[in-house]
Amino acid sequence: MKNLVFGVDIGGTNTAFGLVDEVGDIYAESVIPTKKYLTFDDYPAFVKDLCEAMIRLKDSLSFEFELLGIGIGAPNGNFHRGSIELPANLWKFRPDEKNPDESRRMFNLADDMKKYFPSTPILLTNDANAATIGEMVYGNAKGMKDFVMITLGTGLGSGFVANGEMIYGHDGFAGEFGHTIVETRDGRKCGCGRSGCLEAYVSATGIKRTAFELMAKMTEPSELRDISFEDFDASMISAAAEKGDPIALETFRYTGEMLGRALANAVVVTSPQAVFLFGGLAKAGKFIFEPTKWYMEENMLNIFKNKVQVLPSGIEGKNAAILGSAALIWQKQN
Amino acid sequence: MKNLVFGVDIGGTNTAFGLVDEVGDIYAESVIPTKKYLTFDDYPAFVKDLCEAMIRLKDSLSFEFELLGIGIGAPNGNFHRGSIELPANLWKFRPDEKNPDESRRMFNLADDMKKYFPSTPILLTNDANAATIGEMVYGNAKGMKDFVMITLGTGLGSGFVANGEMIYGHDGFAGEFGHTIVETRDGRKCGCGRSGCLEAYVSATGIKRTAFELMAKMTEPSELRDISFEDFDASMISAAAEKGDPIALETFRYTGEMLGRALANAVVVTSPQAVFLFGGLAKAGKFIFEPTKWYMEENMLNIFKNKVQVLPSGIEGKNAAILGSAALIWQKQN
Repeated sequence: MKNLVFGVDIGGTNTAFGLVDEVGDIYAESVIPTKKYLTFDDYPAFVKDLCEAMIRLKDSLSFEFELLGIGIGAPNGNFHRGSIELPANLWKFRPDEKNPDESRRMFNLADDMKKYFPSTPILLTNDANAATIGEMVYGNAKGMKDFVMITLGTGLGSGFVANGEMIYGHDGFAGEFGHTIVETRDGRKCGCGRSGCLEAYVSATGIKRTAFELMAKMTEPSELRDISFEDFDASMISAAAEKGDPIALETFRYTGEMLGRALANAVVVTSPQAVFLFGGLAKAGKFIFEPTKWYMEENMLNIFKNKVQVLPSGIEGKNAAILGSAALIWQKQN
Repeated sequence: MKNLVFGVDIGGTNTAFGLVDEVGDIYAESVIPTKKYLTFDDYPAFVKDLCEAMIRLKDSLSFEFELLGIGIGAPNGNFHRGSIELPANLWKFRPDEKNPDESRRMFNLADDMKKYFPSTPILLTNDANAATIGEMVYGNAKGMKDFVMITLGTGLGSGFVANGEMIYGHDGFAGEFGHTIVETRDGRKCGCGRSGCLEAYVSATGIKRTAFELMAKMTEPSELRDISFEDFDASMISAAAEKGDPIALETFRYTGEMLGRALANAVVVTSPQAVFLFGGLAKAGKFIFEPTKWYMEENMLNIFKNKVQVLPSGIEGKNAAILGSAALIWQKQN
């Protein structure tokens, strides 16, 4: 009988889930709109609707299989506790709730799903850690014991593997390179409430901020100058760079400088064999990889020079998040 | 029969070694002067003299015991290869050697000692990693699975443990927080050849540089103004701070700020239960601990606030380096 696992990716907009086998083939997938369950009070309905949709998907398969487990990737997911803790964009208090106690926003999703899947192992971690394990199980990190994964989405997520094991740390939140402070003077405000975090420079929102800063600083003409901040999308910078747009090219150089410097610091701490770049910004190819590698080497401690590869993810594609979450379970099987 | 292991600590000035039991009692210890073996050519004589001195010490004990292994801590020690690689202050080429090939300065000490101890397991790592393992086996990190160790000597060494295991990384050099670049603009020159490393601010030499910078910047009188740079010792800053010297107090505040900020970044990457401070500068007690904790919390990502302890080492004392090296072997026994 075939063995399958559920991979579940909880995002701010949608929650995608699918049934995945050991080699990464997805047999069925579906989605529910996370953003429909906007408030703290909607969370129980989210759990119910998600689980019922998963059971329907499971029952829709026309062959017999064993469900080995459910792997979940979620923002602020805590592996140790199976919970989603104080997520920035999920299940917030309603604006009319007076002085709500923020500490109540700890969602024990793995426990809460047990009602629907009483005998199925459920593991949960944050979305970047899920991508990291996905890279190890299905992607370009197969066989590597020490590597760093950087996921470039709206924010900058990351995870690292050492001695062949995902590093969660005491609190379950290790590997948050996106919230290392890289600019101590007049750093950009970050969504976390502090200033100067790497994520405020290297992410879809970070690179957009850089493009606008450079439009103010530089005098060169650029097609980017025709687009308002609200209408601006990070992918427009790649399109402009392809045509040699000077602002777009300088935007990538600066972004690569910030990322390369941060990776040089990440390398002395974790001594990885490779660093993988995953997600939207990584799709800009040479525009982001070349300056990143150059500045990483330029800032590298001697003993690490020319030793650490910067590579594209091998699980890039629309199902990467489902694969990564499923890999949480598969990794435990092996 | 009693079981003992050799702990060997190779320093730029002296190499100390001792026979240590499981609970950290040292039964005999001795020392040879490392600095007598100044050049690349003196290395074979160093190995011979060290091993012969170790054998004499072993033979001097009046009771029967089994030697379970030899643990060695050394600057630039590589655990994976058992080698000391391109050390800054050991066995350099003679100045009269024209264009020597620096890559030859890889000293396979664990292998080379096999001639004298053919059937004894020999493990080698860098001195800060040895202290880290010592803290776990004998010190205040007993029972902790995730912690960071910062050793404050002439430089800043460090190591970290995750999932109960020392993290060496792919290349064997993980955990070098001292060489994360914390100041990207006009950073102080570091011994590694780059600028702005944490070690250039937080270490015996770093705090001395801060004191001199502040003597230039501030106008307050200070007893430190009577001492030349050459005659200055970091311990003089503690002595002056005890008496309320304004330059000394500001020197510690600034040093704590630099260390606290760096620890906030280290915490988001490693998610430790505690950070231990070890070595000369840590002996300044509240002068260094208080600002370090304050700035660490001030710069901490929300989810980690008020969760991570900053603690003094529990193996502080003259034999800490021998204990740490011995712990390399004991850790493998358990």
